[in-house]
Amino acid sequence: MTELGVVRRKVKRAERAAVEALGRYGVATVHEAMGRVGLMKPYMRPIYPGALISGTAVTVLLHPGDNWMMHVAAEQIELGDIVVAAITADCTDGYFGDLLGASFLARGAKGLIIDAGVRDVKTLTEMGFPVWSKCVSAKGTVKSTLGSVNIPVVCAGALVNPGDAIVADDDGVVVVPAGWAMKTADAAAAREANEGDKRSKLAAGVLGLDMYKMREPLAKAGLKYID
Amino acid sequence: MTELGVVRRKVKRAERAAVEALGRYGVATVHEAMGRVGLMKPYMRPIYPGALISGTAVTVLLHPGDNWMMHVAAEQIELGDIVVAAITADCTDGYFGDLLGASFLARGAKGLIIDAGVRDVKTLTEMGFPVWSKCVSAKGTVKSTLGSVNIPVVCAGALVNPGDAIVADDDGVVVVPAGWAMKTADAAAAREANEGDKRSKLAAGVLGLDMYKMREPLAKAGLKYID
Amino acid sequence: MTELGVVRRKVKRAERAAVEALGRYGVATVHEAMGRVGLMKPYMRPIYPGALISGTAVTVLLHPGDNWMMHVAAEQIELGDIVVAAITADCTDGYFGDLLGASFLARGAKGLIIDAGVRDVKTLTEMGFPVWSKCVSAKGTVKSTLGSVNIPVVCAGALVNPGDAIVADDDGVVVVPAGWAMKTADAAAAREANEGDKRSKLAAGVLGLDMYKMREPLAKAGLKYID
Amino acid sequence: MTELGVVRRKVKRAERAAVEALGRYGVATVHEAMGRVGLMKPYMRPIYPGALISGTAVTVLLHPGDNWMMHVAAEQIELGDIVVAAITADCTDGYFGDLLGASFLARGAKGLIIDAGVRDVKTLTEMGFPVWSKCVSAKGTVKSTLGSVNIPVVCAGALVNPGDAIVADDDGVVVVPAGWAMKTADAAAAREANEGDKRSKLAAGVLGLDMYKMREPLAKAGLKYID
Amino acid sequence: MTELGVVRRKVKRAERAAVEALGRYGVATVHEAMGRVGLMKPYMRPIYPGALISGTAVTVLLHPGDNWMMHVAAEQIELGDIVVAAITADCTDGYFGDLLGASFLARGAKGLIIDAGVRDVKTLTEMGFPVWSKCVSAKGTVKSTLGSVNIPVVCAGALVNPGDAIVADDDGVVVVPAGWAMKTADAAAAREANEGDKRSKLAAGVLGLDMYKMREPLAKAGLKYID
Amino acid sequence: MTELGVVRRKVKRAERAAVEALGRYGVATVHEAMGRVGLMKPYMRPIYPGALISGTAVTVLLHPGDNWMMHVAAEQIELGDIVVAAITADCTDGYFGDLLGASFLARGAKGLIIDAGVRDVKTLTEMGFPVWSKCVSAKGTVKSTLGSVNIPVVCAGALVNPGDAIVADDDGVVVVPAGWAMKTADAAAAREANEGDKRSKLAAGVLGLDMYKMREPLAKAGLKYID
Repeated sequence: MTELGVVRRKVKRAERAAVEALGRYGVATVHEAMGRVGLMKPYMRPIYPGALISGTAVTVLLHPGDNWMMHVAAEQIELGDIVVAAITADCTDGYFGDLLGASFLARGAKGLIIDAGVRDVKTLTEMGFPVWSKCVSAKGTVKSTLGSVNIPVVCAGALVNPGDAIVADDDGVVVVPAGWAMKTADAAAAREANEGDKRSKLAAGVLGLDMYKMREPLAKAGLKYID
Repeated sequence: MTELGVVRRKVKRAERAAVEALGRYGVATVHEAMGRVGLMKPYMRPIYPGALISGTAVTVLLHPGDNWMMHVAAEQIELGDIVVAAITADCTDGYFGDLLGASFLARGAKGLIIDAGVRDVKTLTEMGFPVWSKCVSAKGTVKSTLGSVNIPVVCAGALVNPGDAIVADDDGVVVVPAGWAMKTADAAAAREANEGDKRSKLAAGVLGLDMYKMREPLAKAGLKYID
Repeated sequence: MTELGVVRRKVKRAERAAVEALGRYGVATVHEAMGRVGLMKPYMRPIYPGALISGTAVTVLLHPGDNWMMHVAAEQIELGDIVVAAITADCTDGYFGDLLGASFLARGAKGLIIDAGVRDVKTLTEMGFPVWSKCVSAKGTVKSTLGSVNIPVVCAGALVNPGDAIVADDDGVVVVPAGWAMKTADAAAAREANEGDKRSKLAAGVLGLDMYKMREPLAKAGLKYID
Repeated sequence: MTELGVVRRKVKRAERAAVEALGRYGVATVHEAMGRVGLMKPYMRPIYPGALISGTAVTVLLHPGDNWMMHVAAEQIELGDIVVAAITADCTDGYFGDLLGASFLARGAKGLIIDAGVRDVKTLTEMGFPVWSKCVSAKGTVKSTLGSVNIPVVCAGALVNPGDAIVADDDGVVVVPAGWAMKTADAAAAREANEGDKRSKLAAGVLGLDMYKMREPLAKAGLKYID
Repeated sequence: MTELGVVRRKVKRAERAAVEALGRYGVATVHEAMGRVGLMKPYMRPIYPGALISGTAVTVLLHPGDNWMMHVAAEQIELGDIVVAAITADCTDGYFGDLLGASFLARGAKGLIIDAGVRDVKTLTEMGFPVWSKCVSAKGTVKSTLGSVNIPVVCAGALVNPGDAIVADDDGVVVVPAGWAMKTADAAAAREANEGDKRSKLAAGVLGLDMYKMREPLAKAGLKYID
Repeated sequence: MTELGVVRRKVKRAERAAVEALGRYGVATVHEAMGRVGLMKPYMRPIYPGALISGTAVTVLLHPGDNWMMHVAAEQIELGDIVVAAITADCTDGYFGDLLGASFLARGAKGLIIDAGVRDVKTLTEMGFPVWSKCVSAKGTVKSTLGSVNIPVVCAGALVNPGDAIVADDDGVVVVPAGWAMKTADAAAAREANEGDKRSKLAAGVLGLDMYKMREPLAKAGLKYID
């Protein structure tokens, strides 16, 4: 439930081993392993290509044009966390730059997911601090209204509870509920193992039509070939 | 005409020589040579910069959230083809990833143009398989409803007939009707030859105002200079 | 005031020293130094990452699908200028490509800011001519209707007067009125000096909560910590 | 094929009886009867609610910010036609107002479908001349560049050939190829007849689950009920 | 947690008295009474103006282009419910029309909130069945993939649990967690009582500056009046 | 120039007679009479159809999510003013509702133009207080950061100086600089007089092709008629 003006200090985080395991697979594989749910909207893009991170969510709810709670969130970061920032209404302001980046990095954060704007992207890239955001904007913010830290938030269309496992890469951002992390990692592993073999076959020219035995169901559905 | 549940196997493709010739010019030049038509919407962006491809269209029409026909399309690919995927309604799902990429590559495809999402973009980039898409999304799809392969489709605002020549680069994607391919290649060549000379003059400081003899028509149109 | 069919030749440009000084800071810092105003909309993106330019504005007002005045603007460019192009209505056409790029570069322009599309982005990148635009589009334009050069324009939500200082980098584009350039450069310098120390502290693990003395105002505002 | 500078005067229009028959059903029914294709994008909205029209397409291709060809199109209108206007690139300008409305009405047009803006909407509403458009905009246009009349166009994502049947109402706009008009009208009639009975049952509280016999396939697909 | 293929039959609904009380206030008042949280995105618009409904949520999660679960949801409707439909990815298809409208109405539903498209809006308006949706689209859907009914969903950016109180009017849609319904209704009542007096004063020409005693804090914040 | 924390009390308003005269013509006519400039973006829509207002601008610059300055603006309203509200960055929050509506009405305002959201639209409609806005949103705002009143602002893409004449109707919103008001009203009158005759001719079936003598220039431009 969304309550404002609250900071939850004790958060049950997804198991470290599970989170690390999830980090071995891409977002696409984890999302499939989850049963195709938990994905943030595709407008969430990384500020630089090639990053792949997994971690546990410290959530923060902010108001349009106000990044005060980012500093409150910084204190709640533990090693291996990813900060997930939601806004109470659509906003493109640049809530986060290189100063907060230095702070989050020092606290042990692996990255930031924010449903708004970010700035100082060149410096953040040089620092190797990855951010997935709705946009890039130099627009600064004020510090005057309370939001909350470590409450459930909706970020880019996905529900995130504090402690949930987050995986982010060039394909986007997926949220794995803390209680599902281990079984999802297992499912992802199984999927990945399975995919290697498929990839070789397809790369050798075998058609998915044959490999997945689709010809019969397609014909049954009424597919007609014409010349 | 849009018919569902149909795969056309025999497609008259644009002449290979013309398609290869078109590939020597950028999209901007080909689009101008076409008379400024045939361009897809500018939201179509490449998953990595620097690619320039030309090929003949294998078209596929899919439903929102359903990539079943991608596998049917794979079988229709011939060496030098580019798959052009349209959806019956707006959708951002990731219809295509590294497995289908391996399959398309093995079949001889030069790239994919899709008016929806794509995933596994890091792997596709490493494989050197270029994709122009509306967005990047890890969101997977089901395989349950028939679309069609090699029928006329509207992709990102442009009509594409199977066999049409497609040129794609960092500036976007242009469609050249098969019957126009050779004369468009010729027009592009003429244009390009012409542009080299213009470029040198402009780079030497000659103004377009003088080179294109615009001063008189501008004055006639009423342009006033004030100090 | 917006008048069509007019070219102003004599423009009072922001002081060169101030403009160069502004170029030492990023857009984010200058925007803060301005008091958080003057920023263009975040949809304005560079065609390649890493560029940072500052210069004085030559403004141009164009019509949808018509780039005639770009050539008129070229003649008004002085060494160190940045061309700022506004359109009388939303348009995604590619008003600018490598030929105009060669011309602008020869005239001494440092870059282009355009609230529309640009093309030949690969060549422009190779030439090192940076452009910030709303989109990339190969779509060509006609040359038939008069706009104006060096009149006040609204570009991507920001008012730009001819001669204003412009700073652009990966974070976006900011406009500094000519009369404010020096004091803004000074304010940016002060800000930057101040930030270095803050950055070190934050990188060493000091919290913004403590460094900015936020704990008391947060408590006063009613922030509650729960376990 | 898209050719500029051309007006086709002789157009084979869809049969009048079929077009009138299509006008008895809503867009939703016709679209279903077509096999769920041929629909324009949902951003196409009527300027006033409650209109339902059917007619044959006079197509016109225009350039951004230029409505010259609207006047050329006016002459090609026959009684019962609907003008379908496409633009070579995205544009929000107001290409059409009360003067052209008076002209089109006098020529026998039943309405206008335009993938751009329209103005004088209050007067057009009072005149009872319905328009489906992308937006409303007072922005005027120039008259200086040739487009074409009665060539195939892509309007709001749908291919429209001159003479095709168009049906438009509060649900949007659907295009029925001229050659399909009669069989589509028949399919729509069958569908409508069928729906009346279904509607009564559903209104009486019968569930779709039972009426459509969905319980078994749902169970087979694995649906689980929990308390 | 998002689980697919599940229908929860027993849902603890918000107290009827509280839900009815909430229905006496507009969405704006309830949203303020909630502490300014729980609002859906402003793109959610009613298909006709003037409706104001309150009810308890039956949630349904659907896939892009697939409305199968709508029929499953119908069976779970109790008198006074509002169906809240979320999609696993962005989709504009018309999931709901007059047939389902007749069914939902017969089951006792007060309206539908759907983060996608709706069709037959003219008939639904005549039936007096209000719908808040992302868009209007005649595009039909298939019935082939399982979603879920009465699980927590994210609809238009807001978390909705089955049984939550929903209030919708011309200003949008707000979600009140079931456990908060009564106290929110009380807070709304207090707010409303308070507003009547304020409205009279403001309508009599008293300034908010004086009524809210803002002059001093504004001066303290540094506001300067100049002539 | 954009300065924060400032209220200008003495504003030179456009002449009352000119403003009233402008109010006799629609936005489309005034925009044409202005030379096709000064129009706000077409996303600005009225909360109810049919209103046509003209007045003089009281401008206000606000921050995302903060409507404090609305109350400051209220005091600066004189009889016949229209408040024009700009935000320092994109925001959809509901800055204005029925309480402020009552206040503005009491102060003599004719309407509100706001590049953000508005709420209580049903009540505002009943009060007959017209608002043109980017969207409707129940989302409330805080009151904590200074903006400015009666400084130049950019609202929905148009520059507005305090005292400028504003005309708004179903076609949108146009800004007429105070110094241009009278001559624009005269030009609009001339245009309107001229249009009546044209309208009659067109309504009688005369073609624009003939009335505007377009056949020759079209032929010269190369238009070809084919059968």
